[in-house]
Amino acid sequence: MKSFDKASILEAESFFRRDLINSLSGYKSLNLIGTKNNEGKTNLSPFSQVFHIGATPPLVGILFRPHTVERHTLENIIETGFFTLNHVTAEFYKQAHQTAARYEGSEFEATGLEEFYIEGVHAPFVASSPLQVGCQLVEFQTLQVNGAVMVIGSIEYIRVDEKGLRADGSLDLNALGTVTVSGLDEYHIGKRLAKLSYPKPGKELEELL
Amino acid sequence: MKSFDKASILEAESFFRRDLINSLSGYKSLNLIGTKNNEGKTNLSPFSQVFHIGATPPLVGILFRPHTVERHTLENIIETGFFTLNHVTAEFYKQAHQTAARYEGSEFEATGLEEFYIEGVHAPFVASSPLQVGCQLVEFQTLQVNGAVMVIGSIEYIRVDEKGLRADGSLDLNALGTVTVSGLDEYHIGKRLAKLSYPKPGKELEELL
Repeated sequence: MKSFDKASILEAESFFRRDLINSLSGYKSLNLIGTKNNEGKTNLSPFSQVFHIGATPPLVGILFRPHTVERHTLENIIETGFFTLNHVTAEFYKQAHQTAARYEGSEFEATGLEEFYIEGVHAPFVASSPLQVGCQLVEFQTLQVNGAVMVIGSIEYIRVDEKGLRADGSLDLNALGTVTVSGLDEYHIGKRLAKLSYPKPGKELEELL
Repeated sequence: MKSFDKASILEAESFFRRDLINSLSGYKSLNLIGTKNNEGKTNLSPFSQVFHIGATPPLVGILFRPHTVERHTLENIIETGFFTLNHVTAEFYKQAHQTAARYEGSEFEATGLEEFYIEGVHAPFVASSPLQVGCQLVEFQTLQVNGAVMVIGSIEYIRVDEKGLRADGSLDLNALGTVTVSGLDEYHIGKRLAKLSYPKPGKELEELL
């Protein structure tokens, strides 16, 4: 095992520290976030910081780091109150990565990803995504420690490819072809080990799938 | 595609809504969080809500949902200021899942996972984990929307299996054997598609790995 104490972390080259610290949490969720400002300009950007807040009411959180190009997304959410989350598959993960480039116009046009709309949701979905979630802004707050902004949204609409929706409500991400990201720029698909039974002391775990 | 509007989400059976909403973000990071209270009792619990806050200074966040059994971990962090993050591999993901059972004693003893300590970090690491991170509490705040608690910790110490550490600082999670989780109880390993070059308008992406 290789060890790093605080001093050696802080003394490392900044690219090394950035890549290492960004990798520490493990595999991260990957979503394209779609927004549209009040002038009708759409925006699409990849995010690895989307997380579950609660199921009743259904809420989702996004952490926006300070001083990043992602700020168009945050501005549009605050301006319009709407955003969409869209899973990425192996078929279009390179386009998804490319949406992080600093385009003047819409990332949909620039990368060829197609917009899709439903009534009542101002923001665009990604038509080719197998899991699309329409969300409305509930609140946002700034973290004192480094200026990161946490956005909390209510889940208003879900579209999912039937092949990935099980009878119990859980999603089969292997079947959907959902991609996961590690560090800043490395993409993976998942391969299931098992779905496990509810853990209780003294009870053997069962593989449900 | 199957669609759910807000009304059909809220009218669904609670188990269905819980499993669906928990699956929406995609693959999630999986870490065992190790803590020890001031009486010396250790605690170990699986978490899928660990995320990157920043690299300089190196910071990590954990979201604790309200009213869960995870609260021993939160109490120990607030009491002692220390916690560890430990990646989980296919060799011990069932023991990791089992640590979520409601044990009276330590989850290390109950599941057979071994504690490991380094000087200056009060909390126990998981000896068999290929990536171990020692953290110190910086701040925590409660989200008004549903009482979830966000903990922010500084990264004080990193131990990593050399086979997973690249020269650029990024971690090869496939080589480390890191496991990812979806929904509440489904475990996966990752299989790399590619590591992609920095995206710029008009520039073709390259596969770096």
